Amino acid sequence: MSNVYDKAHELARTLRESDEFSNLKDLHEKVENDDVAKRMLDNFRQLQLELQQKQMQGQQPTEEEITQAQKQFEMVQQHETISKLMEEEQRMSTVIGDVNKIITEPLEELYGKPEEQ
Amino acid sequence: MSNVYDKAHELARTLRESDEFSNLKDLHEKVENDDVAKRMLDNFRQLQLELQQKQMQGQQPTEEEITQAQKQFEMVQQHETISKLMEEEQRMSTVIGDVNKIITEPLEELYGKPEEQ
Ligand SMILES: [Ca+2]
Ligand SMILES: [Ca+2]
Repeated sequence: MSNVYDKAHELARTLRESDEFSNLKDLHEKVENDDVAKRMLDNFRQLQLELQQKQMQGQQPTEEEITQAQKQFEMVQQHETISKLMEEEQRMSTVIGDVNKIITEPLEELYGKPEEQ
Repeated sequence: MSNVYDKAHELARTLRESDEFSNLKDLHEKVENDDVAKRMLDNFRQLQLELQQKQMQGQQPTEEEITQAQKQFEMVQQHETISKLMEEEQRMSTVIGDVNKIITEPLEELYGKPEEQ
């Protein structure tokens, strides 16, 4: 299995050296160093998390929570750095998802794709 | 990102060509082609799944279910092919987990390790 681990490290290195990772890192640092942007993003994520947890417990969000979430979403969308960061995070998340699919393909040969079960 | 995808495919190929994957595949086929072994393993997995789902819903398994699970576990442990298959599956699952850790290390630089949050 040492070849597999070598290849995994090569893949991680390629990811770390990609323009996409570099962009993501720059944007992340830019937000971390901007108190207003950081608070705005933290608040947004906190509210998203709370709404997710509610949903997972089968609870409906209140009308006020929905309005607040929409307002915060518009705010972060209008913030240039945050909206770019969120876009790059989405892109990276897609890549990681694709990579996971590629890597687990050999096992799908044995167990079938999850959607087929 | 094309390099990242290339490296992911190389990794998948290395995994597919490993002795561990080949062993897993042979054992999987051996069980699939043995009606008694297949039924034994299917029953065991079905019960494991039911107990997990109960636990996730916060329910305690009954004393009878625990006894049945232990009995089935002993049975599959004593079955040479099934116990070898489960061992190889455990090994593969560890490798996949390690690989995921290696690949997401670059992102941990930005967001911290999950256990630190
Ligand atoms: Ca399939
Ligand atoms: Ca850390």
